[in-house]
Amino acid sequence: MTVHPQQPDPSHIYPVSDRNRLKRRHDRGSYDHASVHAILDASMLCHISYVIDGQPYCTPTLFWREGNRLYWHGSSASRMLRHLKAGTPACLTVAHLDGLVLARAGFNHSANYRSAMCFGTARIIDDPEEKAAALVAVVDRFYPGRSAGLRPITAQEIKATTVIGMEIEQASAKVRAKGVADDEEDYTLPIWAGVVPVTTVLGEVEPCPRLMDGVEVPVELGLYAAGNALDRSLTDAQRAYEEG
Amino acid sequence: MTVHPQQPDPSHIYPVSDRNRLKRRHDRGSYDHASVHAILDASMLCHISYVIDGQPYCTPTLFWREGNRLYWHGSSASRMLRHLKAGTPACLTVAHLDGLVLARAGFNHSANYRSAMCFGTARIIDDPEEKAAALVAVVDRFYPGRSAGLRPITAQEIKATTVIGMEIEQASAKVRAKGVADDEEDYTLPIWAGVVPVTTVLGEVEPCPRLMDGVEVPVELGLYAAGNALDRSLTDAQRAYEEG
Repeated sequence: MTVHPQQPDPSHIYPVSDRNRLKRRHDRGSYDHASVHAILDASMLCHISYVIDGQPYCTPTLFWREGNRLYWHGSSASRMLRHLKAGTPACLTVAHLDGLVLARAGFNHSANYRSAMCFGTARIIDDPEEKAAALVAVVDRFYPGRSAGLRPITAQEIKATTVIGMEIEQASAKVRAKGVADDEEDYTLPIWAGVVPVTTVLGEVEPCPRLMDGVEVPVELGLYAAGNALDRSLTDAQRAYEEG
Repeated sequence: MTVHPQQPDPSHIYPVSDRNRLKRRHDRGSYDHASVHAILDASMLCHISYVIDGQPYCTPTLFWREGNRLYWHGSSASRMLRHLKAGTPACLTVAHLDGLVLARAGFNHSANYRSAMCFGTARIIDDPEEKAAALVAVVDRFYPGRSAGLRPITAQEIKATTVIGMEIEQASAKVRAKGVADDEEDYTLPIWAGVVPVTTVLGEVEPCPRLMDGVEVPVELGLYAAGNALDRSLTDAQRAYEEG
């Protein structure tokens, strides 16, 4: 089998079935690990769908990625996590809004975006070693190296935290990143059309008013300088975290 | 019955049951229309959970609000919409990330956010009048007054668009908007803690390169000036749209 140099290695593509195959706008989609992970790594916030007694829930939460595995956590008391204890089908989605697209016809108004949908079975992480590693990762993935300088986690805190893990079984990425796409005959109309770019940016850090004297802003916050784009900072943090 | 002046009118509160009652962090939650709608109106993007054969899906999409009713749309071909034709339980969620919260202990790291979860039954809008109104609203809710100046929608476009509506039966809003909350004994540790604010902002408009000569940026784009916060622009647009 010859693999075209522009194509990703087939072992680095999530398998496609009816569950994750794009049903429309195939031109905007891909299934390779790199495309999916790039969208995930640029975000701290995801939305997770799960089902209780036939009722769908859509819960926003912080998450992080280790290889093809996704993690999130919460109090042991939370509804979602109690339900997930046995392992349950879930869909974790990340979406970035990148622009508002105004066209010459209502029908062609759109948005620029990047989104990734990941399917798998969400399970409570019971293994003490994997759980301990996850509680370090949830800090260090966002702020590389930070956990080593913090007040160590207590047995009580470990007990109070539930960590959920989900191997990505299938996934898809979908991206629109272009200008206005009007019908050819509409371009001669005297109607304004264009794109308003959207960016999520970081502001000036607000130190805790109760900081001890002489405590400086730590190295790991360098990634989150005021004016930086959040998606870029989070992507850089993931890379730094992976490189250890 | 005496209503405390600080309490919203009970007729303006979404009913609470196990489905939408906050299971943790009650201090962060509310159920009144105003709190829920404020979070919805500040966003263009939502995530919708729905179930097909026991499999949950979490789909990001654009949406808009009319009173207690939410709308979204897509091609008639889309998987979600075909499934929803008969009406199906759904959960539509909006979340805004407002800040990264770095604490003195890993356990107290958090995020500032505003989120709203809305429960109801999603149904295809078949009524021609309601559908026609929705196809105007999807433009004018974001860009008040814009639809009147556009190339009119065609019968073919109306046919190719499926509009979905969902009355909000129940909802909850959840907000964290404060500084670091460390354990009292940790404040004396020489560890940096603080908040990195996050804002989603608009960039300079990029006019379509094929604009006709003399076509100026339209009035409705005034709400989306470069540097404006997207959530504020969208909230102002909703207000202008409601005031007609």
